[in-house]
Amino acid sequence: MNESAPRENWLDEVLPRLLARFGACRECPAVVNTRQGQNLPGRKAVVEVLETLVDLLFPGCHSRDPIPTEEFDAVVRARIVRSATALCDMVERTMAFHCQTTPCTHCGDCAAFARKTVAAFIEELASAREILGQDIQAAYEGDPAARSTMEVALSYPGVYAIAVHRIAHILQKLGVPILPRIMSEHAHSRTGIDIHPGATIGSGFFIDHGTGVVIGETCTIGRRVKLYQGVTLGALSFAKDADGNLVKGVKRHPDVEDNVIVYAGATILGGSTVIGHDSVIGGNVWLTHSVPAYSKVYNHQPDPLVRSSMAWEGPMI
Amino acid sequence: MNESAPRENWLDEVLPRLLARFGACRECPAVVNTRQGQNLPGRKAVVEVLETLVDLLFPGCHSRDPIPTEEFDAVVRARIVRSATALCDMVERTMAFHCQTTPCTHCGDCAAFARKTVAAFIEELASAREILGQDIQAAYEGDPAARSTMEVALSYPGVYAIAVHRIAHILQKLGVPILPRIMSEHAHSRTGIDIHPGATIGSGFFIDHGTGVVIGETCTIGRRVKLYQGVTLGALSFAKDADGNLVKGVKRHPDVEDNVIVYAGATILGGSTVIGHDSVIGGNVWLTHSVPAYSKVYNHQPDPLVRSSMAWEGPMI
Amino acid sequence: MNESAPRENWLDEVLPRLLARFGACRECPAVVNTRQGQNLPGRKAVVEVLETLVDLLFPGCHSRDPIPTEEFDAVVRARIVRSATALCDMVERTMAFHCQTTPCTHCGDCAAFARKTVAAFIEELASAREILGQDIQAAYEGDPAARSTMEVALSYPGVYAIAVHRIAHILQKLGVPILPRIMSEHAHSRTGIDIHPGATIGSGFFIDHGTGVVIGETCTIGRRVKLYQGVTLGALSFAKDADGNLVKGVKRHPDVEDNVIVYAGATILGGSTVIGHDSVIGGNVWLTHSVPAYSKVYNHQPDPLVRSSMAWEGPMI
Repeated sequence: MNESAPRENWLDEVLPRLLARFGACRECPAVVNTRQGQNLPGRKAVVEVLETLVDLLFPGCHSRDPIPTEEFDAVVRARIVRSATALCDMVERTMAFHCQTTPCTHCGDCAAFARKTVAAFIEELASAREILGQDIQAAYEGDPAARSTMEVALSYPGVYAIAVHRIAHILQKLGVPILPRIMSEHAHSRTGIDIHPGATIGSGFFIDHGTGVVIGETCTIGRRVKLYQGVTLGALSFAKDADGNLVKGVKRHPDVEDNVIVYAGATILGGSTVIGHDSVIGGNVWLTHSVPAYSKVYNHQPDPLVRSSMAWEGPMI
Repeated sequence: MNESAPRENWLDEVLPRLLARFGACRECPAVVNTRQGQNLPGRKAVVEVLETLVDLLFPGCHSRDPIPTEEFDAVVRARIVRSATALCDMVERTMAFHCQTTPCTHCGDCAAFARKTVAAFIEELASAREILGQDIQAAYEGDPAARSTMEVALSYPGVYAIAVHRIAHILQKLGVPILPRIMSEHAHSRTGIDIHPGATIGSGFFIDHGTGVVIGETCTIGRRVKLYQGVTLGALSFAKDADGNLVKGVKRHPDVEDNVIVYAGATILGGSTVIGHDSVIGGNVWLTHSVPAYSKVYNHQPDPLVRSSMAWEGPMI
Repeated sequence: MNESAPRENWLDEVLPRLLARFGACRECPAVVNTRQGQNLPGRKAVVEVLETLVDLLFPGCHSRDPIPTEEFDAVVRARIVRSATALCDMVERTMAFHCQTTPCTHCGDCAAFARKTVAAFIEELASAREILGQDIQAAYEGDPAARSTMEVALSYPGVYAIAVHRIAHILQKLGVPILPRIMSEHAHSRTGIDIHPGATIGSGFFIDHGTGVVIGETCTIGRRVKLYQGVTLGALSFAKDADGNLVKGVKRHPDVEDNVIVYAGATILGGSTVIGHDSVIGGNVWLTHSVPAYSKVYNHQPDPLVRSSMAWEGPMI
């Protein structure tokens, strides 16, 4: 390029070649979303709907201002209409995309499927709101640093993550592809807590601190379970088919029964691993087999070496 | 629902029932924030004030553009007025909410408390700005990848986290409920670094990488301390009262003295644990007792098994 | 302060003193960015350009809506012009700042350097887009929970992190200071994945879950490598010069060859550590030495203690 060109024109020389390179791959399905092609909602549009839905669960908490009391019904009504309308359009388009590659047996009419799905979704969201009240109470009772349930509702990442999970899980169960995962990954981004929308989680669930938590697609978790930061409920190994491709959808993550506490950094793996109810799993424990109800599982007494700086000059890592 | 209804009307059928379900719980205090009820600022409003305060600490860095030099005083003045006014309103409302459940002995007049508190806050913020200069210098000197202090100020998550902590900690010490935690959880969300606003942290503090760091409410940390990603300064167990409820507010997190380095993934637990000054705690160390000054603490030499793929076919996890 | 002052005036009393304290340090280079001083772009401006560049790599995915098919070329053209123009201005100003402290031997004219650099950058971005297609395919094939490549492109944090890394790494190689690190720290903030822009990473790269991953400045990573959450590719210790200052820029992070899998929480340290191709490193392994090709490295069989709650009453941590 001619470096002495005036600034306004320097791009003109290189632009045609760049356009050719960026245009060339525009039909490549993995990385382009066009209206007459994939026609999926972009990530930002899905996040906007998600935030309206979170506002329905915690009115006035995660948005900017408290709701004027006399306008409460009108605000709730407007949010239901806005989120349901937007979600219905997104579900219809996402189903139409999905049917291009995975013909579905149950819908036939993407628009009708979308309306039926979104109506069922909003009904179940009302139930999820009641469960969320128990989640918030569990956080308040389970953390000595919590001073009020409003503090918990307004600030705790574990509460935000489970709220979004309850939204995404309903959509996932209703057979909506892609959108639930975009929602759960938004919560993951905000909180560091990665809950696959397929996971089944009971009421009174609390994750404290939360960064680094991973809960896999086929986990089931009972009621009143408490996890700390860095806990993984993951897969032991992946099944492959005769062609060497991973088999999708098989049970591969553990079951955690009621009233279990899992401390920070513990790793529990495997689709046949069951943590019996009322058990406690200690920090950093690595567990790949089942334990019965009322177990306490912990590592052997840690015994780090302690030396004065005079006596030891090896590398510190 | 009637699936053949035109799209505009499909919601009308289900809306009354949904409104009844979403309205039913509207006085339930845990999950609703109304103007004549809790009247708390929403999370987004608190984050907006926080961002203006961060702009006061690093003018022109975390916002969009550099400050025109000749307008510097006017910009700083406008930011002080804007953030102080907004914060004063929020503190007043938050105190009024707090007094509904926890009658306070020291204010009497929430508006007067708010004005006095915010004036004291801004004064202390000016001191925090000087300490933050030492934090930035510590990051520059402590990381071989750091090329300039401006790079550190503009991009390092550990610097953002400690800046927000210094803001939130001043508010916490001044007795403001809820708002400090919303602020610290915003920094947690942005950085993966979870510092409770109650923690006391000296100057020249640097957290490198930072994701997964947890610093508990009752920690005290000396000067020139350096932490890496995944370090937990946490509680060993929680005291309960005679009714089995957690006791709130007791000392339960460790003290870390001056010039200590804690490498990645180390866990230090307990309210009576003291890490003596000039100590080094190695990566992944698990420590639940005190160590004297100048200690070096590390795990036994790690000794993983290494096999060729021919010789071993067990599960890899 | 006079607590009975009307709310509008209470700030007037304290403002002059506050202004003096906040103005005093305004020439202190670490924490102020003014137009006639440092004149660097603020963090938000850099993030805006980054988002336009991500839109070029995944048109219609991370923004709000799909691209109208008939407007595809015009949209791509507009994005190239917008991002190149903004980036050119930023590179010029960042080089001018950099030259104040580190006289450069290769530019002489910051404006000419910026135009040449941005033209080369956009060309390389077109190549990065092709590599990113392989990264997306690797994610789809490597995760049993992935249902379509569009789901992967729209939601997977590992894909977002590597897309931003490929952008930042090109700028870093072209000699642009500060801006690449702001970009990579934005991805770190969004995903919990911390990849230094200096790291060299081959095609078909996939990070699953990702929270807590750290990849150091001088790492090299081959093709078709897969990492899980919490993996550190880090430094063993830092070299210091005769004055006790850290030496910047030396090789201090490991090399990972083709087709390696590193499971969650593994730590691999040191600039002379090489992980031979087709190796598998197990979860939580701590490795500070090289292993040959086709190695399988794992911890000794974990053996946590399991007791019934009756038999053991020690502290659970």
